[in-house]
Amino acid sequence: MTMLAHVRIVEVGPRDGLQNEAGVVPLADKVALIEALAEAGLPVVESGSFVSPKWVPQMADTDQVLARLRRKPGVSYPVLVPNMKGLEAAIAAGATEIAVFGAASESFSNKNINCSIAESLERFAPVCAAALAAGVKVRGYVSCVLGCPYEGAIAPAAVARVAKALSDLGCYEISLGDTIGVGTPGRARVMVRAVTELVPVERLAVHFHDTYGQALANILACLDLGIGTVDSAVAGLGGCPYAKGASGNVATEDVVYMLNGLGIETGVDLGRVAAAGRAILKVLGRPPASKVAQVLAKRDA
Amino acid sequence: MTMLAHVRIVEVGPRDGLQNEAGVVPLADKVALIEALAEAGLPVVESGSFVSPKWVPQMADTDQVLARLRRKPGVSYPVLVPNMKGLEAAIAAGATEIAVFGAASESFSNKNINCSIAESLERFAPVCAAALAAGVKVRGYVSCVLGCPYEGAIAPAAVARVAKALSDLGCYEISLGDTIGVGTPGRARVMVRAVTELVPVERLAVHFHDTYGQALANILACLDLGIGTVDSAVAGLGGCPYAKGASGNVATEDVVYMLNGLGIETGVDLGRVAAAGRAILKVLGRPPASKVAQVLAKRDA
Repeated sequence: MTMLAHVRIVEVGPRDGLQNEAGVVPLADKVALIEALAEAGLPVVESGSFVSPKWVPQMADTDQVLARLRRKPGVSYPVLVPNMKGLEAAIAAGATEIAVFGAASESFSNKNINCSIAESLERFAPVCAAALAAGVKVRGYVSCVLGCPYEGAIAPAAVARVAKALSDLGCYEISLGDTIGVGTPGRARVMVRAVTELVPVERLAVHFHDTYGQALANILACLDLGIGTVDSAVAGLGGCPYAKGASGNVATEDVVYMLNGLGIETGVDLGRVAAAGRAILKVLGRPPASKVAQVLAKRDA
Repeated sequence: MTMLAHVRIVEVGPRDGLQNEAGVVPLADKVALIEALAEAGLPVVESGSFVSPKWVPQMADTDQVLARLRRKPGVSYPVLVPNMKGLEAAIAAGATEIAVFGAASESFSNKNINCSIAESLERFAPVCAAALAAGVKVRGYVSCVLGCPYEGAIAPAAVARVAKALSDLGCYEISLGDTIGVGTPGRARVMVRAVTELVPVERLAVHFHDTYGQALANILACLDLGIGTVDSAVAGLGGCPYAKGASGNVATEDVVYMLNGLGIETGVDLGRVAAAGRAILKVLGRPPASKVAQVLAKRDA
């Protein structure tokens, strides 16, 4: 047990959340959401993506989001970048942090980005080098760390290899993503332990989806191993493209509630996050996936 | 870490679940639910309550439920009993196991059953004695173990005292209930540790409500302490009377999914539990609170 006294929450709702929601959110609402999340005390708010709008129309206006955003000092606003063209657009739009992504599953890599894991890493090498040369921080995602929609179970060693490769490319932090939310705490522990053999735990984040309701239990299991950064999305934004209608990212409100209860400091104001969630859900016209948000909404109504 | 290889799940949906649902479920559907849950491998299925129908109209037909039920050998069907009159009715209806209940909170005891904790225990003493004399097993519940809707935080020592008192009255097992679902894993651990100073862990069960989405994380934390019995309700039946519209009991499906993933044996067939859940939700006309059930329903649709 090496649970830390402080945990950093990386808010991914405006990107990983909104890109998996059905509707396109108006620019002003996106900017308001990101600003509200930063004001709520979140130190990192993932703000968009420079992936082709053909693939992800929800993120087509990320350049305008960055242009309009009133940035809060000390807060980082990373954007997802798939290639050199995306990096150039991100830098032109004023991004100071980007995120790149690899999969721990060959099948997923092939179906999702049409190349092998090794090819995807080769493609990201010059992107990372150029970003670092421009003074832009790089965060790395590994997807499918606890299961793949196409090939099922994933070997922890495969996750570790991809995490190490992204670390070697210069990623300051590697976020380990259970993309389809199938993981349970025991397997999460085994996977994180395998990764820490190649990458120090201080440079790892965990990223759980709540498809099967396991996210908080998985996070707890990883905190026990000394994990100090947790990705989450306000209101549990984002569905699961591999289980239509299922839950998306673990909700920031639920994570903050648990960490508060554990006496772990986050710097995040639960009430303000919940309010930011209610505002964006009004735009999307749907109820929160977060149970904490549901209770707070009823209490504050 | 003393996680057990086998965990016993006590299914409370037909009682703790249905008594907190808005509609009254027809007798035949209740019996079908209980039988389906036993067929799914659940070793204990709480089947009703002999509390006055003035207070709990949903349970008014428990005598008929017990009369009609085809009992599966080896499965226990406990019923909640508030007093001697209830015990007599339970025995007359053929109950072989009853459950009695105390609160860890004085305010809750006063508001819920109109007497102090000490008075409630005095009232249960002859009930337990008479049950045991008649060869009827007695299970004990402690409510509000991690918080009270009227007085907030509850001292772990208070929980331990009530658990010990119920144990001394002859309860073979004490179920520690987070009635309002406010608990988080750290506090759950502290509370269970306090109770194990007075009652052996082998005689304890945990009973979490998922109001704030913390139930699985709390269960995981308690499994780490050697807890071997977990209460849950199929489909997450039962709301929270203290947070209208909020989630009820932790869903059996979600618990089984986590335990399966942890390699912990339960003897429960997840698919059959989920099917039993879908059938009763059809009667109630509402969607499942269980995320696992939501995914399975979509996959099997």
